[in-house]
Amino acid sequence: MALVLHYGSGSPFAWRVWLALESKGVPYELRMISFSDRDHKKPEFLALNPRGKIPVLQDDDFALYESAAIMEYLDERFPATVALFPGDARQRACIRRLVLEADHYFGPSFDGLWDTLFASKGPWDDDVVARELERFANEIVRWEALLGAPFAAGTDAPTAADFTLYPHLALALRLEKRKPDLAIRPLVGPVLGAWQARMEALPYFAKTLPPHWKA
Amino acid sequence: MALVLHYGSGSPFAWRVWLALESKGVPYELRMISFSDRDHKKPEFLALNPRGKIPVLQDDDFALYESAAIMEYLDERFPATVALFPGDARQRACIRRLVLEADHYFGPSFDGLWDTLFASKGPWDDDVVARELERFANEIVRWEALLGAPFAAGTDAPTAADFTLYPHLALALRLEKRKPDLAIRPLVGPVLGAWQARMEALPYFAKTLPPHWKA
Repeated sequence: MALVLHYGSGSPFAWRVWLALESKGVPYELRMISFSDRDHKKPEFLALNPRGKIPVLQDDDFALYESAAIMEYLDERFPATVALFPGDARQRACIRRLVLEADHYFGPSFDGLWDTLFASKGPWDDDVVARELERFANEIVRWEALLGAPFAAGTDAPTAADFTLYPHLALALRLEKRKPDLAIRPLVGPVLGAWQARMEALPYFAKTLPPHWKA
Repeated sequence: MALVLHYGSGSPFAWRVWLALESKGVPYELRMISFSDRDHKKPEFLALNPRGKIPVLQDDDFALYESAAIMEYLDERFPATVALFPGDARQRACIRRLVLEADHYFGPSFDGLWDTLFASKGPWDDDVVARELERFANEIVRWEALLGAPFAAGTDAPTAADFTLYPHLALALRLEKRKPDLAIRPLVGPVLGAWQARMEALPYFAKTLPPHWKA
């Protein structure tokens, strides 16, 4: 039986696994969760993940949640495919550290901005927006020093670190859809910007864009 | 050169690595960071971790931060020692999932309680305390179903999942020091309670108690 990825459009956590599956070239079925129908809170989904969150990867009778654990599992399950955590112990450690930094620092750095802009239809308090934007700016500038080249961990091909970071960045930039004068894009420095372009040039990138973003 | 663990008393993230090192029986030097002297914000420490957080593991000229990545590194660096992520791909996935759940759900579930009780010397708003306590109670009850036995992932010996979860639990229970009538201990169910007792019976457990807790 092919792998099943339980996916929800716009989730950065589900997106990383989709990118990871594409990079490995293993067969999988994408099963779309509808957030508006609350599919992820239905009993059959809660049987796969009691926390009611996507993504979930199903491999026959084994269901796994937590996207960073899923990426590790894919490498161990398909050792002959392109590695998400390639290299020696130090390089693998660096990739894992970047995955954790993307989730523990980069993602949360624009949570406040996100919550502010989606709490109401605006107009928003300029001071609050400026404070939250600064928080994001302080984090994003760190990545100018953190990022290797051509890919995040200094590898020639993208790894779990890239697949984790990219959806967070894309989601942050998407905030300009909500508030066109937000000026979040100019915060992306040259290193991060060049890396972003490399990610968007991957042959499987366009396919994995969140479906509702294309609409 | 022996490994160096840059440690700070009371950090659940540093504590897990200390437990992990003890369980593996590899030689290490513990280097104590003083939070009150702001050692972790000094240039020599920021050279190891630009985010100024502990723990950091130094292995000769390689410095690694992010505690979950450190545990993975220890397994790869010392493959002949007791594994922190033992077993086949599915069991390793389960251990990693539990590590992530402990950090993404268990730990944050009492952040609000912690912030409330340490924001002032009290008296605290009963309604706020009750609401935050309920948030913790909702999370802690999940672990009655999540936990395997005798150890978290159903293994016979403790793994990375146990070393990650235990310090979070100990920190939560410690809130009763701040507010003796908090009644947080009665929230620990029988499965979690029995697991806690097994963790505290580990031969190296007492040694790793945060030094300032013993004082």
